[in-house]
Amino acid sequence: MPVKAAVAHGGGPTAVINASLAGLTEECVRRGWRLLGARYGWTGLLRGGVIDLTALDAGLMSRIAEAPGSALGSSRVPLAEDDYGRLFDFFRREDIHIFFYTGGNGSMETALSVLRHARLANHDLQVIGIPKTIDNDLCVTDHTPGYASTARFFACAARDVGEDNRSLPSPICVLETLGRNAGWITAATALARRSPGDAPHLIYLPERRVNLDRIAADTERVYRELGRVVIAVCEGQLDENGQPFGADVDRAKSAAERLASNLGHTLARLLSAKLGLRARAEKPGLLGRCCGDFAVPADRRDAFACGKAAAVAAADGCSGVMIALRHDSTTFLTPLETVARLERRLPADWIHPHGNDVLPPFLDYAGPLVGEVRNWPHL
Amino acid sequence: MPVKAAVAHGGGPTAVINASLAGLTEECVRRGWRLLGARYGWTGLLRGGVIDLTALDAGLMSRIAEAPGSALGSSRVPLAEDDYGRLFDFFRREDIHIFFYTGGNGSMETALSVLRHARLANHDLQVIGIPKTIDNDLCVTDHTPGYASTARFFACAARDVGEDNRSLPSPICVLETLGRNAGWITAATALARRSPGDAPHLIYLPERRVNLDRIAADTERVYRELGRVVIAVCEGQLDENGQPFGADVDRAKSAAERLASNLGHTLARLLSAKLGLRARAEKPGLLGRCCGDFAVPADRRDAFACGKAAAVAAADGCSGVMIALRHDSTTFLTPLETVARLERRLPADWIHPHGNDVLPPFLDYAGPLVGEVRNWPHL
Repeated sequence: MPVKAAVAHGGGPTAVINASLAGLTEECVRRGWRLLGARYGWTGLLRGGVIDLTALDAGLMSRIAEAPGSALGSSRVPLAEDDYGRLFDFFRREDIHIFFYTGGNGSMETALSVLRHARLANHDLQVIGIPKTIDNDLCVTDHTPGYASTARFFACAARDVGEDNRSLPSPICVLETLGRNAGWITAATALARRSPGDAPHLIYLPERRVNLDRIAADTERVYRELGRVVIAVCEGQLDENGQPFGADVDRAKSAAERLASNLGHTLARLLSAKLGLRARAEKPGLLGRCCGDFAVPADRRDAFACGKAAAVAAADGCSGVMIALRHDSTTFLTPLETVARLERRLPADWIHPHGNDVLPPFLDYAGPLVGEVRNWPHL
Repeated sequence: MPVKAAVAHGGGPTAVINASLAGLTEECVRRGWRLLGARYGWTGLLRGGVIDLTALDAGLMSRIAEAPGSALGSSRVPLAEDDYGRLFDFFRREDIHIFFYTGGNGSMETALSVLRHARLANHDLQVIGIPKTIDNDLCVTDHTPGYASTARFFACAARDVGEDNRSLPSPICVLETLGRNAGWITAATALARRSPGDAPHLIYLPERRVNLDRIAADTERVYRELGRVVIAVCEGQLDENGQPFGADVDRAKSAAERLASNLGHTLARLLSAKLGLRARAEKPGLLGRCCGDFAVPADRRDAFACGKAAAVAAADGCSGVMIALRHDSTTFLTPLETVARLERRLPADWIHPHGNDVLPPFLDYAGPLVGEVRNWPHL
């Protein structure tokens, strides 16, 4: 009887999550294991939607490794308390004693919970986490697979929106980035700059609450100097009262619903009213996380390596750990407890004291991950 | 005394407008002419902001030819009646008798107006139009430089938003495209499809007014079949009353202001309320017109050829004409009267009778212009 393992994904897809799956599958095949992949997260395991990944044609898997989005499918639906019974029924029926879970800090908490429930249920199970998040907000690991590609997308977006705005100057352009509570993606727009005057001119980070008057004063100063202002701001930016700009506080029931409001659009409207200048917002949105054409080869290699390392860790008898990356892309193991639910935010000393830019250590960190962002010449 | 000419741009930049400038400049240099480029459209000619393009380093110009946005700068400010005096003062002072104007149908009307005013002012002037618009809505020409690159951007956006939505199914996703009154760009999202189930599942075109009930019925049908629906819709889509979806009819003063409202976002909200399904909107926005990484090489070559052909036409003594392209990218001349202010919309027999898709002749037309859109594999 070969070793049998299962893998599921949690949360949003990235440009390189398929490479993690390919790395994991390749290592399982090499060891003669069988690997069942869950379609659409828990749903697949609980309702029998699984694929034998180790039986797939290797050529297909290597093409999938290059594709953005998740070929296996993912889910945001959490595992409910009464799902565990059915989950272990499935694991017992299929004789599965190794479980790989790909995701961010919320998913790592779920992985830990699966491990605890397995012990209670007396089911012998190794649980290994594979890191994945565009947000780069997992602790311990130097960076997360998926981040560099999204960072590259938004750096190129800041550059190109900046070029457009330089060609046909519009006083204010707000570029809304992904990233929720952590500023890693927003900060990466700084990689677009090469010369004075290059966009983005202001970068606000969710690590620092900021009030509208402050943004307006910064914007006016840049406008007087250049006649155009590109502002990079995170979808989760909070004002001084801890509310997202554009939050429909009265109508929205949850914080998530408030975040779903159009932050960049609202901030542009507020700045326009305050400064009497035309303002527009650009929100590339989900394209930033499923951006196949912007996938960074090194990011894809990191994702592949994390998948492979997860199978190796399982073979070594490890459990309750997540694969982590060093800056040089070598992997190591970290206990799930060190990453579950915890959020790594941009270090305070990488943020400009004025709260409207990043400092050089961030560029030293992110530059090598993202790779060179081509600069366009000017007359 | 060498021949002296001037060039200005009107309207929004594209991914390849710099290639037109490079083609024009190269041909002027070859003929020993001097070419003055106007910074920021009319502003440059009226206020002395000009650059001698023929004196620039050829290496710089060839790098600029590859960059998106307009290195020269452009303007949306129209030429006012009392600007003409100053314009001809400038042309007389600089001894300029050839004027090139790069733009779309509005700009070609301005070019015609400059020519008429030159005759009234007794200033001997040749006026040559160089086509440029992402909207592809100029008459006579088979296609316009700038269109193919933007079409490619939105085809890739539909594909990647489709992959994201396939990975983590969300009932409804509205993808808002550029394009104003013509559906050429929206239609190009159909190039993303390769297999049944591929996004976009519905394509609405501004050539056909459509009511919300109809969109909702189409959406529900696709949702029942696939569990996910990606809808491509143009920023200028009108409902059955001739109003854009999301138009703030009471508050907005002009049609342009109504269009500036967030059509995709509002349509998603309306569909969600009507169908009781979650809906989101994606609006890649201006990235679609300044998308350096999506520039189609053939589009850049077409732009370059149009610039070059404009100088050749001037040398041949032509005036009052615009350079036009055949489908095979050879150029010919067409009188400004045949393109000025006129709008070419998608042919009625290229639109599906249900008004929610394009027909194969559109794909036969656009496919060779846009080039192959890489398809991602699925499990």
